[in-house]
Amino acid sequence: MARRVGSLVPLAAAVLVLLVAAGAGAAGHDDEAAARRTMEEFAGFPASDGVDGERSSSSAAAAFYVDSDGLQRQIDELASFSDSPAPSVTRVLYSDKDVQARRYIKGIMNQLGLTIREDAVGNIFGHWEGSEAGLGAVATGSHVDAIPFSGKYDGVVGVLGALEAINMLKRSGFQPKRSLEVIMFTSEEPTRFGISCLGSRLMAGSEELAQSLKETVDNQNVSFFDAADSAGYKMHPEDLHNVFLKKDNYFAFIELHIEQGPILEKEGIQIGVVTAIAAPASIKVEFEGNGGHAGAVLMPARNDAGLAAAELALAVEKHVLESGSIDTVGTVGILQLHPGAINSIPSKSHVEIDVRDIDEKRRNTVIEKVHQSATEISKKRGVVLSEFKIINQDPPALSDKSVISAMEFAAKQLNLEYKLMISRAYHDSLFMARISPMGMIFIPCYKGYSHKPEEYASPEDMANGVKVLALTMAKLSLQ
Amino acid sequence: MARRVGSLVPLAAAVLVLLVAAGAGAAGHDDEAAARRTMEEFAGFPASDGVDGERSSSSAAAAFYVDSDGLQRQIDELASFSDSPAPSVTRVLYSDKDVQARRYIKGIMNQLGLTIREDAVGNIFGHWEGSEAGLGAVATGSHVDAIPFSGKYDGVVGVLGALEAINMLKRSGFQPKRSLEVIMFTSEEPTRFGISCLGSRLMAGSEELAQSLKETVDNQNVSFFDAADSAGYKMHPEDLHNVFLKKDNYFAFIELHIEQGPILEKEGIQIGVVTAIAAPASIKVEFEGNGGHAGAVLMPARNDAGLAAAELALAVEKHVLESGSIDTVGTVGILQLHPGAINSIPSKSHVEIDVRDIDEKRRNTVIEKVHQSATEISKKRGVVLSEFKIINQDPPALSDKSVISAMEFAAKQLNLEYKLMISRAYHDSLFMARISPMGMIFIPCYKGYSHKPEEYASPEDMANGVKVLALTMAKLSLQ
Repeated sequence: MARRVGSLVPLAAAVLVLLVAAGAGAAGHDDEAAARRTMEEFAGFPASDGVDGERSSSSAAAAFYVDSDGLQRQIDELASFSDSPAPSVTRVLYSDKDVQARRYIKGIMNQLGLTIREDAVGNIFGHWEGSEAGLGAVATGSHVDAIPFSGKYDGVVGVLGALEAINMLKRSGFQPKRSLEVIMFTSEEPTRFGISCLGSRLMAGSEELAQSLKETVDNQNVSFFDAADSAGYKMHPEDLHNVFLKKDNYFAFIELHIEQGPILEKEGIQIGVVTAIAAPASIKVEFEGNGGHAGAVLMPARNDAGLAAAELALAVEKHVLESGSIDTVGTVGILQLHPGAINSIPSKSHVEIDVRDIDEKRRNTVIEKVHQSATEISKKRGVVLSEFKIINQDPPALSDKSVISAMEFAAKQLNLEYKLMISRAYHDSLFMARISPMGMIFIPCYKGYSHKPEEYASPEDMANGVKVLALTMAKLSLQ
Repeated sequence: MARRVGSLVPLAAAVLVLLVAAGAGAAGHDDEAAARRTMEEFAGFPASDGVDGERSSSSAAAAFYVDSDGLQRQIDELASFSDSPAPSVTRVLYSDKDVQARRYIKGIMNQLGLTIREDAVGNIFGHWEGSEAGLGAVATGSHVDAIPFSGKYDGVVGVLGALEAINMLKRSGFQPKRSLEVIMFTSEEPTRFGISCLGSRLMAGSEELAQSLKETVDNQNVSFFDAADSAGYKMHPEDLHNVFLKKDNYFAFIELHIEQGPILEKEGIQIGVVTAIAAPASIKVEFEGNGGHAGAVLMPARNDAGLAAAELALAVEKHVLESGSIDTVGTVGILQLHPGAINSIPSKSHVEIDVRDIDEKRRNTVIEKVHQSATEISKKRGVVLSEFKIINQDPPALSDKSVISAMEFAAKQLNLEYKLMISRAYHDSLFMARISPMGMIFIPCYKGYSHKPEEYASPEDMANGVKVLALTMAKLSLQ
């Protein structure tokens, strides 16, 4: 049965305010009237905790609840499309599991009566036409791809949760003025091609990415275009430009996401209102040494590419800590040795580094120091630094005041405790901010765990996030 | 056409001495006569550089040459059975390429009229019955498996070279008293199951290995027995004991091998007479940390299993250098991170370490220090040292005086400059030494390169090695 989370009283209140907001913000008379009618429906009925089934279709308030069981069921079903055993999830761009997940999302969009559009790279848009379709739409969304052996909430809560938010608004009889849109972004995770937020980066008009994708291949040397083709997205390089979106396309973009950090849980706060997203950067490094027989080559005669990689990994940590700022983080998540035999000295090594900070300058200083270390290590060990490539070095993004206030408004109306905070993880919002006013809603997650199987968000926390998202979208759609 | 390498004069001389040796060493009258007949054939004819074809079947001396072109052709053909592109060779235990290589070797044994036997794990024996089959045989041989992206001479020279040595003795009409045997050992390289010298270790009667093989699986979780089955070696665990050999099975074992070090080439010496094999050890280490999101988990909250692995790799180098001995070497050839995504903190790491020394005590001290470091690192970083397993920790092996003197005798008779030396790399001889008097013949290789595609030995150097092996076996077979 559908569990109903949270009292509905605050919703009625929230709606009264929306009513005023609508009255104030509405453009034409008809729309104003339409908006008022909808809002009156919200306000007109008392809160009810009616048992399942006895739900009068006319009772918007009664209908304005989160189907937490349904949402959890969808999250579990989506998690079953995985290339690694449960509870872990592995869903890599354009893999069979990714294609199955896409089909699953489009299925739900269909059930909700949304108009579906897919662009060249597979960004999926579920569109709910507003009464003033000419105005910029209010969009929300996230991703469903999952790095190897990760969890089932990262990104997913922002897609399935957004669809449940739409469901709530539909159940309640809400009629949007600005169109509402749910986006499932392609490849937020860099797993396959080393490019993070591939879909949103392109939407935001990255000509650089459009160009580099022409030469991009994965570890198996499969080109980006062949991989896309295998997932049903056959395209020509020029088609990439059709993914670009105009700046006035969206009036606002809001992303619902688990915090991926421990703060909200630790402080017992239900909602995080994100004011800025930290600036991520990623780097690929390759060393080439001499290799040889692990028994026969004496230590002074060695140029061990593996030890060079090990030193660099520790140098990354050192330089990050030297920054003295708690907000600076650096990670070596990939370190590969060639040929990779116990009795063979590594002749090549491959390292991938992730550095982030809310302060772009400070982050770039760390990157410079890492580069210096890589050069020094290669000299010291007589190995060649054959590659030091900064794959991306993005600036941080600021949330838009209008979106922040709409999110704060919603949280207040729902009597949810919220906190203004920074997102240390990057999200598609980082790039949506380039073409639209942006904001993010965080919910607590267990111990701040993410990118591993232990990742977890409670049904209550997800329901709170979905309600804040629904109310925020409703408010913005009426502006 | 067959190139003839080296003058044949010394051979005639060598043979005169063998004649005496034979006379002295022979047991029964008939055998003595038989041996003398054979030796007279050697001695009876003048050295000849006769052009191809004009080779009188009765002319043993003329026939006593190395078919260097044939040997090189076989080496190149064998190298074509590889899972990586030329010039690199990758031939892993029980893979299709390994099976093809085995078929190729048996084909040559057949052509030479040797009696072929294969034991349960696929050690292959080519037997040439001597006039006194009851006596312990004189054996030689090596391996043809190749670690990923390695070269085509390691091991191969000791198998194809040994078969060419047999060919020489047959061409010359030599009649062995003690049987001669060429062995192709199974899996000298530890690539697939982390066990080095699997075949010779079992022959030497390692009950410990016979037991552990019951639980052994490869990286793909394929069991040893399933892998063997797929290569045509279906067996029950008990069959492993049939691989064990009795101590009196062999009168002597000699292995021909490239040096895999730079000494002979640097000093311009043609033959290395090995007096001892350094003691190898290999260790598997696993750390388990917490992992998590590379952006969201702050540095103080991390337990990075990858950085623990990096520190351990550098600690191995440090402890080896601290030994102060040029003969101590340590290598981290395998370092793997889990989950292996650029934006995920490594939650697990796997390290494989190779430590060797001609001084067993000194090597074991290094292993103890590495273990201490692993423990300290795990405490410092708050990661679990979930495994520190010494896979093998073998003692060094000494060559037998009788075999050393036979090898020296042969080199002298062939007017080849030789040097007594140590083998830093381990070989199947390390384990054959447990059940038979053992000796090894080294030849120079380019820059001492091994375990990489640049590995190379010249036809001249291989021919010298083959001749020394042939003469050594002939001498020992008559004792």
